[in-house]
Amino acid sequence: MKNSAAEVGRERYALAIDLGGTNTEVALVSRKGKITGRRRLLTRCYGDVRSFVEAVASTARELMDTTGTTESVEGAGVGAPCLNAATGCIEAATDLPWPSPIPLRELLSEALGMRVEAVNDANAAAAGEAGYGAAKGMKNFVMLTLGTGVGGGVMCDGHLLSGRSGFAAELGHVVVRNGEGRPCGCGRCDCLQTYCSASGVVTTAKKLLEEFPGWPSMLRDMDIEALTAADVSEAADCGDGLALEVWRRTGERLGDACASFAAFADPEAFVFFGGVARAFPHFVQALRESFDRNALHLYSGKVAMLPSALDSGDAALLGAAALIFNEKE
Amino acid sequence: MKNSAAEVGRERYALAIDLGGTNTEVALVSRKGKITGRRRLLTRCYGDVRSFVEAVASTARELMDTTGTTESVEGAGVGAPCLNAATGCIEAATDLPWPSPIPLRELLSEALGMRVEAVNDANAAAAGEAGYGAAKGMKNFVMLTLGTGVGGGVMCDGHLLSGRSGFAAELGHVVVRNGEGRPCGCGRCDCLQTYCSASGVVTTAKKLLEEFPGWPSMLRDMDIEALTAADVSEAADCGDGLALEVWRRTGERLGDACASFAAFADPEAFVFFGGVARAFPHFVQALRESFDRNALHLYSGKVAMLPSALDSGDAALLGAAALIFNEKE
Repeated sequence: MKNSAAEVGRERYALAIDLGGTNTEVALVSRKGKITGRRRLLTRCYGDVRSFVEAVASTARELMDTTGTTESVEGAGVGAPCLNAATGCIEAATDLPWPSPIPLRELLSEALGMRVEAVNDANAAAAGEAGYGAAKGMKNFVMLTLGTGVGGGVMCDGHLLSGRSGFAAELGHVVVRNGEGRPCGCGRCDCLQTYCSASGVVTTAKKLLEEFPGWPSMLRDMDIEALTAADVSEAADCGDGLALEVWRRTGERLGDACASFAAFADPEAFVFFGGVARAFPHFVQALRESFDRNALHLYSGKVAMLPSALDSGDAALLGAAALIFNEKE
Repeated sequence: MKNSAAEVGRERYALAIDLGGTNTEVALVSRKGKITGRRRLLTRCYGDVRSFVEAVASTARELMDTTGTTESVEGAGVGAPCLNAATGCIEAATDLPWPSPIPLRELLSEALGMRVEAVNDANAAAAGEAGYGAAKGMKNFVMLTLGTGVGGGVMCDGHLLSGRSGFAAELGHVVVRNGEGRPCGCGRCDCLQTYCSASGVVTTAKKLLEEFPGWPSMLRDMDIEALTAADVSEAADCGDGLALEVWRRTGERLGDACASFAAFADPEAFVFFGGVARAFPHFVQALRESFDRNALHLYSGKVAMLPSALDSGDAALLGAAALIFNEKE
């Protein structure tokens, strides 16, 4: 990394945008990985993608004005679901409220008037974790983002896998073994994300509540229709047996899936983040046991299972920012 | 590629060694990919690995003497199962008759007195296919080697995946969905290779013969205990309905597995080779249909299914040779 004389002493920033099915975050990130501003938009509140892009752009401008960084921002990095890094388009997204394809990079570049780099959201998260988080210094790891959906990012031999159209590591859509036939937004059944996303965890909780009506649980006192993965996590925090069983089953599914992923990538570690990964302490034991039981002996007992070392959501933002900074290295 | 003046006009060669669970091939390969000599050893005939290595070395010397190429050989490339490219050792091989770990690169280097480069056999095959075969010019493809076992090689973004210990792309040991509980040499059940290796195909044939005793088949006239995948292929060539059903089921399993692999690598093509892949015309339709039915819409209908464009076995030898030549490019 070399700075020209004129740049020495001037902090450099990137706009970082993390587009999710539920929330979108816009932030200013310094080169050293400090997030100096951060705003949240509710993705589903925008009826069409143009009004959404306008809202992102005006949020970004407000952020830059407030912090006086307008002159120091070098570009905008974006992580978004189903984003084709080659074209900058969101293609066939199942978790967004607007029709695909969406020429996101082009739309944002016009609205912001600056260079925009865009990748798959989970790949951005993996880049952030590799640069600043739990996978710092690792050349081989698999990132799983457990949120509204389940996403993957795979670093293999120091390279973040992209694939022909930027759709490598769509690990949330690998079909589990011995599934219950849960329908997925993609039109198929039993994708990993129908078990390990936020709504997948809720489905498992509802299933257990119904299957074992005599099992006391604080979840029964809640509005079952409005139940969230966070509720199930809080119940587990209180030692609720049924909630703990929900997490055990979630970890078991995840560990079995990771056993397959290991045969593909031979990783040093799996890194988990996203809203659901906040319950990591509740599912890590089942995850490890299931992985070690199901993985080939080459990997069994040899792969670390790590929660994200970054604040939830930071990984995606830091990774998005890295798209801009890495270009200059 | 630049040659020094002294090298112009002198053909350059590599020794190529393809170590398999049943056969081992030793060959001389020119830089342009011409195989000028070729010998076969029966791997299982050697009681220990040292006598095997000695046999390989004397075969190699005999080849070089006969062709007068001793002075023109630049090194030996090796493809072997479960080979850790980082250490040059065969680790925990389940398809070889000798105990692991086997320091193959070191043993061969001593016996041959030349530089030895070694990788996983399927990775070598993928390198050969990328350089000279069906995947020529492709940056994203998945190779499946269907032989005594099932191996994988994954080229993603122009890079052959290696992983932490050289054990990436062990695709034969990914567990299938809805398996019958077939035991695998690795100690687990329902690995892909228990269905799509040569012995997996034979198991499927025996199962159908037993399950449908009234279904006439020329396979019934054979010694069932000595049945081979080649027999099942020949019966299918003759239009034998039961044999064709064996291949349909094999293609179906393979297509479902490829649907998962696509979610990992976003490939342009799958390339199939090895003894079992000679029956490609018999299983390609079921393979394609199963892939398109089971894959995420991002990949469905968009990935080519290709048989190896190289003579059976050539891919592994050419890939092994490429390990030597690529170093000089």
